[in-house]
Amino acid sequence: MQFRLRCELQYDIATPTTVILNVEAQRGGRQSILGEAFTVEPQVQSEEYEVPETGNRYRRMLLQPGRYSVWYTAEIESTPTTRSIGSIPQVPIVELPFDVMNHLYPSRYCQSDKLARFAWRQFGEIGDGYEKVTAICNWIYENVDYLEGSSDSSTSAYDTFTLRAGVCRDFAHLGITFARALGIPARFVSAYALDLVPQDFHAVFEAYLGGQWYLFDATRLCPLEGILKIAVGRDAADSAFLTFFGQLSGPPKLIRVERLNTSQTTQWTTEPVSLSAI
Amino acid sequence: MQFRLRCELQYDIATPTTVILNVEAQRGGRQSILGEAFTVEPQVQSEEYEVPETGNRYRRMLLQPGRYSVWYTAEIESTPTTRSIGSIPQVPIVELPFDVMNHLYPSRYCQSDKLARFAWRQFGEIGDGYEKVTAICNWIYENVDYLEGSSDSSTSAYDTFTLRAGVCRDFAHLGITFARALGIPARFVSAYALDLVPQDFHAVFEAYLGGQWYLFDATRLCPLEGILKIAVGRDAADSAFLTFFGQLSGPPKLIRVERLNTSQTTQWTTEPVSLSAI
Amino acid sequence: MQFRLRCELQYDIATPTTVILNVEAQRGGRQSILGEAFTVEPQVQSEEYEVPETGNRYRRMLLQPGRYSVWYTAEIESTPTTRSIGSIPQVPIVELPFDVMNHLYPSRYCQSDKLARFAWRQFGEIGDGYEKVTAICNWIYENVDYLEGSSDSSTSAYDTFTLRAGVCRDFAHLGITFARALGIPARFVSAYALDLVPQDFHAVFEAYLGGQWYLFDATRLCPLEGILKIAVGRDAADSAFLTFFGQLSGPPKLIRVERLNTSQTTQWTTEPVSLSAI
Amino acid sequence: MQFRLRCELQYDIATPTTVILNVEAQRGGRQSILGEAFTVEPQVQSEEYEVPETGNRYRRMLLQPGRYSVWYTAEIESTPTTRSIGSIPQVPIVELPFDVMNHLYPSRYCQSDKLARFAWRQFGEIGDGYEKVTAICNWIYENVDYLEGSSDSSTSAYDTFTLRAGVCRDFAHLGITFARALGIPARFVSAYALDLVPQDFHAVFEAYLGGQWYLFDATRLCPLEGILKIAVGRDAADSAFLTFFGQLSGPPKLIRVERLNTSQTTQWTTEPVSLSAI
Repeated sequence: MQFRLRCELQYDIATPTTVILNVEAQRGGRQSILGEAFTVEPQVQSEEYEVPETGNRYRRMLLQPGRYSVWYTAEIESTPTTRSIGSIPQVPIVELPFDVMNHLYPSRYCQSDKLARFAWRQFGEIGDGYEKVTAICNWIYENVDYLEGSSDSSTSAYDTFTLRAGVCRDFAHLGITFARALGIPARFVSAYALDLVPQDFHAVFEAYLGGQWYLFDATRLCPLEGILKIAVGRDAADSAFLTFFGQLSGPPKLIRVERLNTSQTTQWTTEPVSLSAI
Repeated sequence: MQFRLRCELQYDIATPTTVILNVEAQRGGRQSILGEAFTVEPQVQSEEYEVPETGNRYRRMLLQPGRYSVWYTAEIESTPTTRSIGSIPQVPIVELPFDVMNHLYPSRYCQSDKLARFAWRQFGEIGDGYEKVTAICNWIYENVDYLEGSSDSSTSAYDTFTLRAGVCRDFAHLGITFARALGIPARFVSAYALDLVPQDFHAVFEAYLGGQWYLFDATRLCPLEGILKIAVGRDAADSAFLTFFGQLSGPPKLIRVERLNTSQTTQWTTEPVSLSAI
Repeated sequence: MQFRLRCELQYDIATPTTVILNVEAQRGGRQSILGEAFTVEPQVQSEEYEVPETGNRYRRMLLQPGRYSVWYTAEIESTPTTRSIGSIPQVPIVELPFDVMNHLYPSRYCQSDKLARFAWRQFGEIGDGYEKVTAICNWIYENVDYLEGSSDSSTSAYDTFTLRAGVCRDFAHLGITFARALGIPARFVSAYALDLVPQDFHAVFEAYLGGQWYLFDATRLCPLEGILKIAVGRDAADSAFLTFFGQLSGPPKLIRVERLNTSQTTQWTTEPVSLSAI
Repeated sequence: MQFRLRCELQYDIATPTTVILNVEAQRGGRQSILGEAFTVEPQVQSEEYEVPETGNRYRRMLLQPGRYSVWYTAEIESTPTTRSIGSIPQVPIVELPFDVMNHLYPSRYCQSDKLARFAWRQFGEIGDGYEKVTAICNWIYENVDYLEGSSDSSTSAYDTFTLRAGVCRDFAHLGITFARALGIPARFVSAYALDLVPQDFHAVFEAYLGGQWYLFDATRLCPLEGILKIAVGRDAADSAFLTFFGQLSGPPKLIRVERLNTSQTTQWTTEPVSLSAI
């Protein structure tokens, strides 16, 4: 499937400010960039860095006071793999690749140590692997209200579990937290997403099952095949689309994600979806 | 300087349990292993992994029910570099190596986002680089009571800041938190330490200054040259000496760290100390 | 029913310390003191105060350094009323006595504001009045592990809800929190309790229903008719059996509660129980 | 001094909602009502209750769906007492009136148990009584930013201490917390206040010293003699100007407080001010 996406940001800078943007789509795994453009106006020098281990792409620049506009546009081919449910077991911890184990530990927004007792009581006996993580997502969908404005940048899974309201980022954090508590590596995914209303950046998560990372979205807001990965990380703390050091303000971002070459209506899958290379 | 260290652990395993030990000293940077032995009795198969990026050394094994004894002994040559104060500036964020930037983000035990306002008020105007991080350590030493039993494995810097009591791990978390809040990359260091009373694992932290990682210990419990690094990480969540999945109990660990070939009393330095390669 | 109870406390005082004890049983409502004695050795002057609104009985004394023993013994007649379930509705807020309304507000250990969304989702549709509070107690019993040592004096209902473990005090706090969130006044009750193993002070709660305070115990550890009230309050913050200002230590307290004149085995009720006057 | 005050509220009610208003000024102590009017339009039946122990005045009504306007206007004579500093000592706990002791305990927004170590370290050695509470207020003023929008209705003193930003209610909660931690009874005061910009309800606190309640305002936003008490309580949880059970929305409230009969500029006192009866 092919997608066209567009992201427009505008910033007013009051003092010299270092800005790190992470809005460019990943180009590894099952996601290829057909074409893309990243523009800042007025023009500034920027430094690019693609993390070898994750594929995250950072753009760093030092902005002097003034108003800046940033555009990122891309055409992307995504060829997610799908597999039939039931065949994707949890990997015993003793067999996990060592570089995946980092995703078992609690992190800033995912205090899996604190929610372990609940996770075992609620999900300990339910299925295995993909089925268990699906049960986690169902529980979140049924027990947490999706409510704009109910959380902020300091809200963690611990809070969301108690307050029972949040947005996509909070849903992802809670899913990651339960998975880790049960011994399943899980990581945060920031993404562009088809059919998200209103259009915005999206946050979902991946769990490592059967030797591969699979996508999960407890919000049920868009089809998994329409997820275009920007960054992966332990949680939103290290996967933000914008990090800045200085002073910055601006109007809301504008995001647009469209599908290309679609003559017929697609039947979206309900089967496991992965964007991993293999 | 040469050291001999010994670590004895004993575990009673009730159900099949995956154990990951991270007790072996690092062998990169300015720390060389002259000799070492890692023994488990009864003998079990174990898998070793040394993380390329950090030098952390993991030992993973699946233990069947029973009683196990673990010994790790090593002779280590440490040649820390020292430098004169004042010459070590904070690196502007726009010039930081990208792989160091991860250590600017808040983590499970180091909510630098929540303590930013305090950090800027308290330390914003104090010196630069090494001087600023030293001011952080002094503040912690003067404002937090070192008190065994005052914290547990869920205690974070946010709690320690309010409760004003903690142990070495809490002191390190608070130092890391303030440094990150001020734009200085900082990471957790688990270590063996000379002259620690009572002898135990120790926790300190490193801050990235002037292009290198420098050691800091807000507890003032032992000389910086007597620190022998085991693991580095974002915080104690990913740098534990023991992680297990299953059921495990046991008597207290026994640690012993001695200095070798010491005919004269050493004058410990008060200058910046680094164990980094360059 | 008649009970004999005995409470032995021993304190070592290091500096002049003001001690407020609240161990004497209430003597209002459906609880009469047949005889009692309160002794401190060595003898000290103490001041008594019985709160008109609650019946709580305080004993305040200034202790000079030394070792003190405190005994409280009493014979008590308790004549709780029982009523058949289903007939006890929630009182509309507009009809609540004003002096009961204080027990609708969140307090130190009962953050009913933070758990309101969950409470309404979980219990909003279940029954009315007594039935609803019973559903709350059942949920706590089924979802929280009773585990000595899993909480401390700073643990609140917010923590217990997430950690899913606690002791009697935590069970009471969580019950109070849910009830208040649903508009039902609820208060903390510290008590002596028959058949509690091991014998100790107990904590339960009362909810205001149908114009009267009814007892609830989510721990299911002892019969409601065996509850002998010491103090009521918003939560454990203002209902402690011991409050002191200074330095105090001592061995564990000894509590003993026995039933008198019992020739036959009692069939404990499962019906609503109240110790209120009317 | 005489004041005229006016409070206008407007509410849109969607479902039958019980509303409890606490906007009428206290009429005991050193505050007399010269004239007042409370009006709701359209007219509804309301029930009044003045708490004997505190003087708080509640107005309770059941509102059916619709739009309501509420006006409260009053002319008030306030004759606060002032005393010279230094003569107001802390009351030893063993001598406190028992009905004041409730204000020593931690409450929903004032976790004095958690901030005790800091309070003793910071204020333990500073002065006595009034001087100590003044030091608390100075510390808050100097260390916490007054920042609209930095807190919400769930923000407690524990949060404010760490985040270092808040509004009047948070400043009052922090002052109460430190005072209680040091053994000084303290309570929350909601008030009308002269010269507050923008005009709004205000929150300050009272500490019990030398046998009387004294006013403190760590925000320094208005003169203490211009404080007109509405309610006192343990904290904002039981002293809100509005509590409702149901659904309610509406535009911002309008408050106006003016001084009457003022021909000359007043020199506001910096001395202790009390509105207590004696």
